[in-house]
Amino acid sequence: MIINKRRDCQTCGIRNVTILNNASSVLLEIINSKKYCLKYLRGEEIVKEGTPIEGVYIVSSGIVKIHKQGRHGRQFILRLATTGSIIGLPMEENQKHDFTVTAVEDSNVCFVEHSDFKEALRNFPELKDKLLEEFSRELKETELRAISLAQLSVREKVAESIHYLAKTYKINNRSGFYRVNVGRQDIAEFTGTTKEQVSKYYGEFESLDIIAAKGRLLHVKNMEKLEEIFH
Amino acid sequence: MIINKRRDCQTCGIRNVTILNNASSVLLEIINSKKYCLKYLRGEEIVKEGTPIEGVYIVSSGIVKIHKQGRHGRQFILRLATTGSIIGLPMEENQKHDFTVTAVEDSNVCFVEHSDFKEALRNFPELKDKLLEEFSRELKETELRAISLAQLSVREKVAESIHYLAKTYKINNRSGFYRVNVGRQDIAEFTGTTKEQVSKYYGEFESLDIIAAKGRLLHVKNMEKLEEIFH
Repeated sequence: MIINKRRDCQTCGIRNVTILNNASSVLLEIINSKKYCLKYLRGEEIVKEGTPIEGVYIVSSGIVKIHKQGRHGRQFILRLATTGSIIGLPMEENQKHDFTVTAVEDSNVCFVEHSDFKEALRNFPELKDKLLEEFSRELKETELRAISLAQLSVREKVAESIHYLAKTYKINNRSGFYRVNVGRQDIAEFTGTTKEQVSKYYGEFESLDIIAAKGRLLHVKNMEKLEEIFH
Repeated sequence: MIINKRRDCQTCGIRNVTILNNASSVLLEIINSKKYCLKYLRGEEIVKEGTPIEGVYIVSSGIVKIHKQGRHGRQFILRLATTGSIIGLPMEENQKHDFTVTAVEDSNVCFVEHSDFKEALRNFPELKDKLLEEFSRELKETELRAISLAQLSVREKVAESIHYLAKTYKINNRSGFYRVNVGRQDIAEFTGTTKEQVSKYYGEFESLDIIAAKGRLLHVKNMEKLEEIFH
């Protein structure tokens, strides 16, 4: 982890996609003076499951995965988070992180200590509205994921995961290969299946000319056909 | 739906398990004057997916299921809600319900109109803290469900669902049969499997002397053995 030079919240280019999009100048000034700008290299752990919550993180660039120990000791990826996402919202005191956050790509994050964030919440109730929206959105997404996990076949889940990757990496199907730092093992941990099963369906989708994959390089050649598989 | 006589929030016996547990007298008086006490009979729809959000509901007695249209038109039960649960938290204006709520048993609910609830939220920021806690708890539960759905076998999921029923209905394994108004089709819609599969595992668990089931009557004879199946 590298501590970067502090970027100014007031002029920050990604602020409009964060919970601070409509924040007052006073609130911004407070957050600005309290925050740290950190850089994590690909593969580095940002937060470790089971350790005390120290603060909240906002992803300013890059992609991180939020994962946790699942059943029978297997890891499960809850979601990928990218620019603007807030991670580690602590609602109770003295909580521990119940997930791990790992940088999937080199990522920049802004960090605000728990106590400072709590104080801002106390003094700026409008920030609570933003958090409520954030929780509401995350809950809905997780509910939809639960439905997919329950009702789709493994083949459909792998197709949906590739589609999710394409959205996360903003893959345009007219373009060539994209470097997605999410491997077959990650897809397995996202869908609750095995790497072998994922490889099998990658192979099938390649033979159907829907995707092309070389290691961590991915090319979605036919987004419509990909969607047809899981819709 | 029957409109019941209004119960006083100040003296309500279940208030301490709702978001109003530490509410001030002023807030309680406002909610009290605005709320409706409604009774729904078993099988009645309280909220219908796709209809405009009219307000929030707090379950004061009974059990309701929150379900939604899943993939390929199949219903999926997100959760059961019982005494104290709040349903239908609207975070954005002009939203529609993205789930259906159906009474699994005869249930009493308190209803507060959207606009009244929003006004209370504006004037009593401490209510927002309660909602944040509620969302945080619901999100965690849904994440754990997603993991179970992804990583457990159908057999393990059915065992876990029976355990969930036992907790919801507060089934004590020393006692006899309980009337659980959740049938095999509901368990199928909770786990993303078929009624036939559920019946198969009910049969297996009966032959192992872990449960006894007669229609909607359920007896968990060995809670430890039941837990062993999915742990």
